[in-house]
Amino acid sequence: MATDPSFDDVLTAADRIAGHVHRTPVVTSRAIDGIAGATLHFKCENLQKVGAFKARGATNAVLALDDEAAGKGVATHSSGNHAAALAYAASQRGIAAHVVMPSSAPPVKKAAVAGYGAQITECEPNLAARESTLDEVVARTGATFIHAYDNPMVIAGQGTASLELIADVPELEIVMAPVGGGGLMSGTALAMSASRPDVSLWGAEPAGADDAFRSLRDGRIHPSVEPKTIADGLLTSLSERTFRRLTARLEGILTVSEDSIIRAMRLLWERAKLVVEPSGAVPLAAVLEYPDHFEGRQVGLILSGGNVDLDRLPW
Amino acid sequence: MATDPSFDDVLTAADRIAGHVHRTPVVTSRAIDGIAGATLHFKCENLQKVGAFKARGATNAVLALDDEAAGKGVATHSSGNHAAALAYAASQRGIAAHVVMPSSAPPVKKAAVAGYGAQITECEPNLAARESTLDEVVARTGATFIHAYDNPMVIAGQGTASLELIADVPELEIVMAPVGGGGLMSGTALAMSASRPDVSLWGAEPAGADDAFRSLRDGRIHPSVEPKTIADGLLTSLSERTFRRLTARLEGILTVSEDSIIRAMRLLWERAKLVVEPSGAVPLAAVLEYPDHFEGRQVGLILSGGNVDLDRLPW
Repeated sequence: MATDPSFDDVLTAADRIAGHVHRTPVVTSRAIDGIAGATLHFKCENLQKVGAFKARGATNAVLALDDEAAGKGVATHSSGNHAAALAYAASQRGIAAHVVMPSSAPPVKKAAVAGYGAQITECEPNLAARESTLDEVVARTGATFIHAYDNPMVIAGQGTASLELIADVPELEIVMAPVGGGGLMSGTALAMSASRPDVSLWGAEPAGADDAFRSLRDGRIHPSVEPKTIADGLLTSLSERTFRRLTARLEGILTVSEDSIIRAMRLLWERAKLVVEPSGAVPLAAVLEYPDHFEGRQVGLILSGGNVDLDRLPW
Repeated sequence: MATDPSFDDVLTAADRIAGHVHRTPVVTSRAIDGIAGATLHFKCENLQKVGAFKARGATNAVLALDDEAAGKGVATHSSGNHAAALAYAASQRGIAAHVVMPSSAPPVKKAAVAGYGAQITECEPNLAARESTLDEVVARTGATFIHAYDNPMVIAGQGTASLELIADVPELEIVMAPVGGGGLMSGTALAMSASRPDVSLWGAEPAGADDAFRSLRDGRIHPSVEPKTIADGLLTSLSERTFRRLTARLEGILTVSEDSIIRAMRLLWERAKLVVEPSGAVPLAAVLEYPDHFEGRQVGLILSGGNVDLDRLPW
């Protein structure tokens, strides 16, 4: 497996995951366009399997395994969408999935992962415990560790979202995605580099979790330390692999306030009729905060996910 | 204009409104299928222009006018989605829209209608005042009255939703839509009668506003008197025209409880990531309340709209 995935890996991923994940629709809203002063095209990964783009990368990684490795199952640590995505992907191939989750994870998230038939191992809610518990699970089972973003096949799989987006809306001038660990953004950069070098790429990140912004600015990875944001899918740090990819292709990363995230999220619910989680609203928040970058342009925004607790809405 | 629209009128409507309204996506949810015990295909009219299927019928009716009539504008009375739809349709043709709205209509709804450039005339909040005020507006302006559902071109336009649905999902065995005044259901019946007589059609209605159910049962129109339901798009009575169409083609109408409507609405938000208004959730509520009718079947459900107040959710 190459250290870095290639554009061909994205094309292969698209073929491999077809039939296992949705080709999600692209939605527009004249009302939001009027507010934004730009023509926005929303790629609805909130309507994806497991409610997030993560189904793409996890499915690609699981289906790319050879039969011997697959027979021993896959493993990861995650309390978020990747856990459900890997469990879903493993169920599609009919193999075991082992998911290490912090004991503090919400019961509803554990239930979702268990619902896809995964084995859950609980651990203390800190990164060291997650990693050591995962090591134990891998040693015991021989399962292949599938990292949430620092994995070439995961990145290639995430790239298929923007491949579909640009096929549906060839007139796009700008594409923007949220940045957490950088898996989706790296896949997007990969898909756009070879097929559409004319399209500008921007990342969007909460100001309260701006490690990727600072990393690109300073030319070295700043780990994410005590991030504070409602966008709970964007708390993780870049890896060397995703940092390289983002540095090579992005125009930059725009950071947004919590108020903008909540405003963008509510606009998507109210005007576009889409249930989008805070992380997925971050790119629209960037359009609202930096109108000069986008005025009059054709902009593709990846709505990364839609998993929210309806009893705890932020307005 | 013929009293009853024909299947050809639906085909003509589809050509006429293309480019003015969205071809909305069809969304599926494995999680909801698991709960329902059937394979459900959701036609997303909540993602339609103005957030409801009403944009189809209003646009068809407005574009079907000859130039002389169009030059004098269009008029209606409505406090709901038809008001916004007619205002939108008139703006697409560049003609005047006059909308009579009760003084009690929420400011946000008035703002939406005004936002499309319509002239709003307020009246007392009762049907007599609405009709007499509309008569005055029509006498003064010469505008053509476009009824929300008792209009052949409106019905033909609404039929285009199920025409798209069956084209996207030819394996459908059952199609179900909510019933208020019967415009959407009549259009659905029209589209399905000629093209797919093998498909069973059901209507779905709140038990608290079951006038259509009683009308079909008794073979005569029962007016809707003091309806009590959260599904505020389904309060109106059938007309002779929609009653005829429903009687001719429907298997029947299923009535559902308020609890089922709220449960269905929440499932659509939580699992399908779609913002759907209570009226739009009524068909899914029927699947949940009458599982024997749908078990193991391929079912198309029209999610009629997504206009809700996010500050007043029913859970």
